[in-house]
Amino acid sequence: MLPDWVYQECPGISAVHRETALVRQAQLTKPTGALGRLEHVAIDLAGLQQTEQPRASRVPIIIFAGDHGIVAQGVSAYPQAVTIAMMTNFASGGAAISVLARELGATLEVIDAGTLAQAPLPGIVTDKPRCGSRDFSVEAALAPAELAFAFECGKRAVLRAEAGQPDIFILGEMGIGNTTTSAAIASALLGVSAGEVAGSGTGVDAAGRARKARLIDAALARHGLTGPGVAAEKILCAVGGLEIAAICGAIIAAAQRRIPVLIDGFIVSSAALAAVRLNPSCQPFLLPSHQSAEQGHRLVLRALNVHPLVSLDLRLGEGSGAAVALPLVRLACVLHNGMATFAQANVPDRPAG
Amino acid sequence: MLPDWVYQECPGISAVHRETALVRQAQLTKPTGALGRLEHVAIDLAGLQQTEQPRASRVPIIIFAGDHGIVAQGVSAYPQAVTIAMMTNFASGGAAISVLARELGATLEVIDAGTLAQAPLPGIVTDKPRCGSRDFSVEAALAPAELAFAFECGKRAVLRAEAGQPDIFILGEMGIGNTTTSAAIASALLGVSAGEVAGSGTGVDAAGRARKARLIDAALARHGLTGPGVAAEKILCAVGGLEIAAICGAIIAAAQRRIPVLIDGFIVSSAALAAVRLNPSCQPFLLPSHQSAEQGHRLVLRALNVHPLVSLDLRLGEGSGAAVALPLVRLACVLHNGMATFAQANVPDRPAG
Repeated sequence: MLPDWVYQECPGISAVHRETALVRQAQLTKPTGALGRLEHVAIDLAGLQQTEQPRASRVPIIIFAGDHGIVAQGVSAYPQAVTIAMMTNFASGGAAISVLARELGATLEVIDAGTLAQAPLPGIVTDKPRCGSRDFSVEAALAPAELAFAFECGKRAVLRAEAGQPDIFILGEMGIGNTTTSAAIASALLGVSAGEVAGSGTGVDAAGRARKARLIDAALARHGLTGPGVAAEKILCAVGGLEIAAICGAIIAAAQRRIPVLIDGFIVSSAALAAVRLNPSCQPFLLPSHQSAEQGHRLVLRALNVHPLVSLDLRLGEGSGAAVALPLVRLACVLHNGMATFAQANVPDRPAG
Repeated sequence: MLPDWVYQECPGISAVHRETALVRQAQLTKPTGALGRLEHVAIDLAGLQQTEQPRASRVPIIIFAGDHGIVAQGVSAYPQAVTIAMMTNFASGGAAISVLARELGATLEVIDAGTLAQAPLPGIVTDKPRCGSRDFSVEAALAPAELAFAFECGKRAVLRAEAGQPDIFILGEMGIGNTTTSAAIASALLGVSAGEVAGSGTGVDAAGRARKARLIDAALARHGLTGPGVAAEKILCAVGGLEIAAICGAIIAAAQRRIPVLIDGFIVSSAALAAVRLNPSCQPFLLPSHQSAEQGHRLVLRALNVHPLVSLDLRLGEGSGAAVALPLVRLACVLHNGMATFAQANVPDRPAG
């Protein structure tokens, strides 16, 4: 149903480069382990990037936008027109992720992977099989060919960015209603009831959350997605979204090219979980960024075995949580590459134990 | 005992600028509150800096180094000579804080506030009343005049940096043995037994920690520092250190000039707690950075009412934890200042509730 490349093995971690990085960390002028998780970030990245000098300098940010038929059921606090308006805001520099990209010196590409926009918008790449997904409470959100198109859209974005020799990717999303779609995907993939993963999104209240959860539980039952072992392809067709499927494709395509992805919030993490179910070999390339305020995020990250670096109650999406965490990854790299060793600095080390 | 300026009132928070910042946050193109703690950082900073455009661009890093007589009791995993060797490493660019300062575009000043160095070292400001503190397990660490000198050293550093119009300060420390000194200060200020605040420092084991705690408890009893209401001045003379006292002075001098300080790990936080006891009006100017792996840090931060932004198991000192958190404060500022409002971007806001 999906293109063959989706299932192709990603390269492995370089054990040699990981080991070299571990040895180097122990020689730097600091007590062993004193840089805590920043040491692990550098060591992991050295193994993934197959290098002695892990880098997080060139980090393209790619945002995929899509609209969601489920919005007809009143699941969002914001009107659906916000998806298109925010795409324009991304491109014209006023959104949070636009400001973050400028400050971080990162390129920002905005892709209409499936919004309701009827014509291409200035500064935005249009790459979609249809305008919006269908309402999954009444029918399947996507046809198999539409899902496959979205995966290719994600891969095409990675290929465009590849010319700039990216060190890491940040993938973001925009789509009114997409916390509902993500909760449906996560609920089906994790085999938990929707109440455990459906959060307040852009700001629905407790009654709204309960309604979201009931809608999702009913839809999962209708589409036959409850119970163990349902294929991720089937889940994505039944309750998925175009921007989420594009992110799945982009994650797998990036990992196949040995480029790690800094995993953003609940929506990107749900896409990542689907990617790992489709192609488990991409898992090591998922790097932690933040723990969002969206309640399902913790469960999805645990399933991904990804431990967030920061927890700042962010719940914005757009890739903003990953962008906020990027400076920590960059500092981990420059510390690893730039600090002096005990021998170089002529600092007495502790006596061997 | 301390100079008069230490007790002079710091300026208050500007309620007008705080309120303006709050209103602006609600107008930016994101769901209300979706930037979580980054919103609070920007709002707090606007009130402290008395501005509509909070800034964290110019952030001098000042490291105070000192040696500690208590090292004679075998409290550290590293030899005492490391204090001087690391000062040189800071100045020559090989230490963690040197790498961080370069990456963050921050100036780095290293001050010998009381190490055992007998002569001035290249690239280091010498400003000390004596070489090292006395062993507080047998006598008072500092004479009152030495303590006062160290406070002036801290103030002088702030005055030197003031010409560069700093937005925020990062204060760091270096001193083999100074987690023991800090644990003694924190234990006395908080009225808890040393076992609750004495951690592993640069890497002593459980037996070493227990020994540290016993030494401290005995010293606090000998110097009459147990029980409630002991004056901070008395505690700092009895069990303090020169770099720690200099940091106390620098915090108060900075706050008096309306310049917030990003509070680093256990040692700087203990100095901050002493500063707040001496002059409670400096408290609002203490900005959170990180939660270190050093066990007493949590207790001291709670007493300071400072909630760390990141928790990365750092335990290095040097101001490195504050430096690692600085990008988050910078991003909070640029988001606050640079995002478009709903009106500017023509994005539909949610219907008024």
